Amino acid sequence: LAFSGLKIVALSGGVGGSRFVRGLRASAPGANLTAIVNTADDFTVHGLRVSPDVDTVLYALSNLVDDTRGWGIRGDTFKTMRALERVGGETWFQLGDQDLATHLRRTELLADGWSPSTVTAELTRCLGIRDVTILPMTDQRVETSVRLEASGEWVPFQEYFVRQRADVSIKDVRFEGIERAKPAPGVIEAIEAADLIAFCPSNPFVSIGPILAVDGIREAIDRARQRGARTAGVSPLIGGHTIKGPAARMLVELGHEATTLGVARQYVGLLDLFLIDPIDKAQADALRQLGMHPLVTDARMRGRRGEARLARVVLREVERRRRAGS
Amino acid sequence: LAFSGLKIVALSGGVGGSRFVRGLRASAPGANLTAIVNTADDFTVHGLRVSPDVDTVLYALSNLVDDTRGWGIRGDTFKTMRALERVGGETWFQLGDQDLATHLRRTELLADGWSPSTVTAELTRCLGIRDVTILPMTDQRVETSVRLEASGEWVPFQEYFVRQRADVSIKDVRFEGIERAKPAPGVIEAIEAADLIAFCPSNPFVSIGPILAVDGIREAIDRARQRGARTAGVSPLIGGHTIKGPAARMLVELGHEATTLGVARQYVGLLDLFLIDPIDKAQADALRQLGMHPLVTDARMRGRRGEARLARVVLREVERRRRAGS
Repeated sequence: LAFSGLKIVALSGGVGGSRFVRGLRASAPGANLTAIVNTADDFTVHGLRVSPDVDTVLYALSNLVDDTRGWGIRGDTFKTMRALERVGGETWFQLGDQDLATHLRRTELLADGWSPSTVTAELTRCLGIRDVTILPMTDQRVETSVRLEASGEWVPFQEYFVRQRADVSIKDVRFEGIERAKPAPGVIEAIEAADLIAFCPSNPFVSIGPILAVDGIREAIDRARQRGARTAGVSPLIGGHTIKGPAARMLVELGHEATTLGVARQYVGLLDLFLIDPIDKAQADALRQLGMHPLVTDARMRGRRGEARLARVVLREVERRRRAGS
Repeated sequence: LAFSGLKIVALSGGVGGSRFVRGLRASAPGANLTAIVNTADDFTVHGLRVSPDVDTVLYALSNLVDDTRGWGIRGDTFKTMRALERVGGETWFQLGDQDLATHLRRTELLADGWSPSTVTAELTRCLGIRDVTILPMTDQRVETSVRLEASGEWVPFQEYFVRQRADVSIKDVRFEGIERAKPAPGVIEAIEAADLIAFCPSNPFVSIGPILAVDGIREAIDRARQRGARTAGVSPLIGGHTIKGPAARMLVELGHEATTLGVARQYVGLLDLFLIDPIDKAQADALRQLGMHPLVTDARMRGRRGEARLARVVLREVERRRRAGS
């Protein structure tokens, strides 16, 4: 099997991250793959605990995902939401009927005293995902808020992201509880044992950022690198734009450059490799100055083959470097 | 309008009760109608608060009900339940996708500090029910259990009723919390002001019984009768059988006669009238000996017209007696 025995850890957000994780699985069937998933944008709606990034990864890896949207369940219906509207409930966060089952189950297990990581393991098992370990970054509750430019008001992330469609300007992001968050069981061990730590093409602020901010995760990455592990990032921006999500706009609003380089700067001192699209190759030198080797290749993940191809580019370069001892 | 200004209170369980309430509404459009609904079999499933009898009354009065089953929402689907099975959840209590919205909304409002009666009022309003006031019997939590004959074990009512389809023998019923239950706001006032208090064709043990056991309700009925209010019961048994539910079997298992008379005996000292089917007319004399005037008429509620006809029989007799001052 390709990349047999390779230990891979992927730090992932939602849509883009889950696709890259799926690409890694497809390209490295012999590898030992662990996805460490952001939970900073988890939230409670209608009393149900929703973990958007974990769910997206679960659905992507169990082939349930709606590939067009990149999240939610393919063919899902919204009958409960329509009925909820009828009984006066808020429905700006649309939960599909099948998707709802995941939140019901999670909420029920959490109420029974399970931790988010054991719930995730149970959902992984039930959905038949046997080749990837999915770990939430932490079992503690972290809550993301953004500060609106116009009013100066702090609003919960999903309110900004879903209700307002990220269509308002923000000037700050905060992660309540992040300073008390401990890595979920298995997170540090997986990072320390990794041969490759991949930073998926996810939002550097609200997806990868919180993972790196969990107590001890940066240090574990440092230790892994000292031991010889390679780290590779994949730009979520192509030509200054994102395929999905508000990363480009957030970069600008938070005072950065809406470029691949602007993303890379969030990862200074952490990455050996950074995969960028040919459209961004003018930034290659600047990446080298940040200590990252630019890996230039078509960065769009077109379908399952595209995901696998992108992952393969990273895997091959890492393998080459491991063989060369560089 | 027929029966204009008549103040009617109906004590109701689920399927049979909701149909008789609907019959009262149809036959007495000018009346002031309040349904006081059993909540002793409310329960929590998947973290959601379900109030089966209140929901059945809500659905019946808003024309959402599945008339074939007599409960749940017409045309409802079970997509969430199927997905819940996939993620390892228990699905013996099948909640429809639309029905689920009611439980989500209720649970959410209760978590926000609403009482069951204010939640019920809100659902009543949202579902466009303007001509009937629906009151849960109490805002306190009451939990029904039955004791299984075979094992002597106490099990929650829904476990017996739904999971086991009431297909096992029981030897006792208990209502935990009933001694602390206070009537919900408006319950005592409605009873005290009533011209007619109807005991719907519901299970005398697990539907009407708990309502009568709530602190002060029996006394309020007594006071209303002293003031001239009439009370009428409708037998849920016809020829010893129920249209729906385990009342007949429960009567026998709890040491009573599975007859109209067996039901009537649960209401001794409470009823002026008791509506029975011609098939049971041999019991008319025994009813008179219990102090109840037997009202003999086809007791099957065939469709909406049947419900209305049955209600009209009761209403006319009450009206006749009021005029006669008897």
